[in-house]
Amino acid sequence: MQPTWNSRFAQRTQRMKSSAIRELLKLTERPDVISFGGGMPAPEIFPSEEIRLACDRILKENSAKALQYGTTEGFNPLRQMITEEATKNGLHCDLENILVSSGSQQALDLLGKVFINPGDNILVESPTYLGALQAWNAYGAEYVVVKSDEHGMLPDSLEEGLRNNPKFMYVLPNFQNPTGITFSLERRKKVVELADKYGVPIIEDDPYGQLRFEGESLPSLAILDAQMRGQSNSRYDGNVIYLSTFSKILAPGIRLAWVIAPPEAVSKIVQAKQGADLNTSSFNQMIAYEVGKDGFISRHVEKIRSVYHERRDVMLDALDEHSPKSIHWTRPEGGLFLWVTLPEGNDSAELMKEALKQNVAFVPGGSFHPLGGGENTIRLNFSFSNPQTINEGISRLGMVFKAHIH
Amino acid sequence: MQPTWNSRFAQRTQRMKSSAIRELLKLTERPDVISFGGGMPAPEIFPSEEIRLACDRILKENSAKALQYGTTEGFNPLRQMITEEATKNGLHCDLENILVSSGSQQALDLLGKVFINPGDNILVESPTYLGALQAWNAYGAEYVVVKSDEHGMLPDSLEEGLRNNPKFMYVLPNFQNPTGITFSLERRKKVVELADKYGVPIIEDDPYGQLRFEGESLPSLAILDAQMRGQSNSRYDGNVIYLSTFSKILAPGIRLAWVIAPPEAVSKIVQAKQGADLNTSSFNQMIAYEVGKDGFISRHVEKIRSVYHERRDVMLDALDEHSPKSIHWTRPEGGLFLWVTLPEGNDSAELMKEALKQNVAFVPGGSFHPLGGGENTIRLNFSFSNPQTINEGISRLGMVFKAHIH
Repeated sequence: MQPTWNSRFAQRTQRMKSSAIRELLKLTERPDVISFGGGMPAPEIFPSEEIRLACDRILKENSAKALQYGTTEGFNPLRQMITEEATKNGLHCDLENILVSSGSQQALDLLGKVFINPGDNILVESPTYLGALQAWNAYGAEYVVVKSDEHGMLPDSLEEGLRNNPKFMYVLPNFQNPTGITFSLERRKKVVELADKYGVPIIEDDPYGQLRFEGESLPSLAILDAQMRGQSNSRYDGNVIYLSTFSKILAPGIRLAWVIAPPEAVSKIVQAKQGADLNTSSFNQMIAYEVGKDGFISRHVEKIRSVYHERRDVMLDALDEHSPKSIHWTRPEGGLFLWVTLPEGNDSAELMKEALKQNVAFVPGGSFHPLGGGENTIRLNFSFSNPQTINEGISRLGMVFKAHIH
Repeated sequence: MQPTWNSRFAQRTQRMKSSAIRELLKLTERPDVISFGGGMPAPEIFPSEEIRLACDRILKENSAKALQYGTTEGFNPLRQMITEEATKNGLHCDLENILVSSGSQQALDLLGKVFINPGDNILVESPTYLGALQAWNAYGAEYVVVKSDEHGMLPDSLEEGLRNNPKFMYVLPNFQNPTGITFSLERRKKVVELADKYGVPIIEDDPYGQLRFEGESLPSLAILDAQMRGQSNSRYDGNVIYLSTFSKILAPGIRLAWVIAPPEAVSKIVQAKQGADLNTSSFNQMIAYEVGKDGFISRHVEKIRSVYHERRDVMLDALDEHSPKSIHWTRPEGGLFLWVTLPEGNDSAELMKEALKQNVAFVPGGSFHPLGGGENTIRLNFSFSNPQTINEGISRLGMVFKAHIH
């Protein structure tokens, strides 16, 4: 009398691998480990008091709505708030353009469900966000990778990739996860033009766009696409699906993100979401609306920027002080991550084992590369640990580098 | 310069249809319509004060955890609470058996992702829960249907269905959605035995099991399966994946449900969930734990039972009073729904249009039938409207029946 699960898992289940990052995070949960591995915001600056007051008001005044099922598209006042913020920032849109999702990861999953047939090519940066690969592997995606430099995707390589007729292209133009690289204005325009030329839709993932702590803010691909189409003053109906999230500007624990997309794409994503989780928590959406409606978020983002700015600087200085000369790293103008490149031939996954012996952790860069490569790279997170901990952790890491890098 | 979405939707997107129920609910949102269409709990008895106090405590004492990312499996104290409750009720299990999901709909979606290859047969009751069909259509499921009577699936029909080697079978043994029917103990045992005989896993969906207001509580299929395997006193590792939810015993707006499954199946579902939404809201899980940890839920469920009991009785009496003799309905011993059968040849979807003219709404039964049929059936919800509204609504519906039923 045997249970019969094993023999019945779907083909796609074979493609699902437990995220390397998540498995690694388990190892780094020991309290004596300083982890630069996760992608977690600084918990010290969560707006917990504002959220507490919002919960109190909502549950006293509007609990019948907050605790009930809601519509799949999302809580309308929150959707409205999102359109107003986007329009203010240069992307004119209305309610029909907006879907609220249970974190950006859900949006990536739903986009996979709506767009990817097994064997479809998806055009991505390499390295790129691991969670997107994980979501899309389950739908049988294959990948076409584009070469990049410190200004973003290289146009020649992009054009070559687009000739493979990918189902869509996926880009993170601001402070990319994992590298921290930001696309220049010129490259952004090129991406939008080439995507249009080859008729390939763009998924623009922008979780960190508001977290710029130096340099000039640049228009999103969606804004450039709307300008190119002459839709700057009307509902957006172009070639970009734009994703962003409350995880980095409020808190990830409420699992709230949003999609801005052409109405027809929104309606397909809504259908996929109905089957996936019916709707995102009404209560959590009302919290984000209550906290955000009077402009609190933009004030709060100032604080986040200043904290992350300091932490990035501390990490850059510590790397300067403790690293051997053969190692290089990016200098992101915002976001949560920087990217370290070791000399060719070093294996950061092996190095991770040594690092853990010194109670410091990071994510080996290989897993961010959909077609392999990048074994000599490392992602470091600077948002989560406080400056003192960053200093101590990078000092430990420096010792590991000096002892084991060749 | 055209956006290129249309031509790029995946094949599965063609199979996704906007849920008939949800589209209908839009029509019934007019405040003058009395809707028996949704599946919503009574908002008057949401434990909003208990939830408010829980939010207050969590955000004062533990906000750094509540507002941060969490593990994919779920918040451990909540998982522990679920194992203790299940063990107390006769299903011995431990943490490795438990996954917390973002509502039961997400569990259905993840099970589809883990188990269904395009073209796989899934064995279901007919009618069955529409949300399951909607989730699994996206993965290319085909359906084998089993005949039922008022005691559940008919064993001969079940055995015939099992011979088609379905990927799994899906059953709602308690107060089924949509019919309100409950499986007898004898039929439960037969289902468990036959599923084992043919090596077909069971997905047991039990959102309403605690909402029994008359008759004797019966063991779940998971408990009977554990007994059959001699696992009554050890970690569960049998043939059933059991689903239940906080939506009906606390509130749907916090989007929390759970899966009890063999550890190996849990680990596959966790992998699917990583790609689908990383984790369910830490904050919401802590709310359910805070509210539930001292036994509040079982006291609260008493209240829900008593309210729904009264509402069911009011609806049954009103149907008796206002319906023509040619109409029949079920008398559920619990849950949220009852099921009306009109004489053959009547079309409840057509009748719905007449009902809306009289400002009363229901769900036509056809959409719950995966292979068609049931056009002369109707699902009525008795949990959402108060007794006075139920009386008024059924009186309107009675007039529609009398004018249009042949």
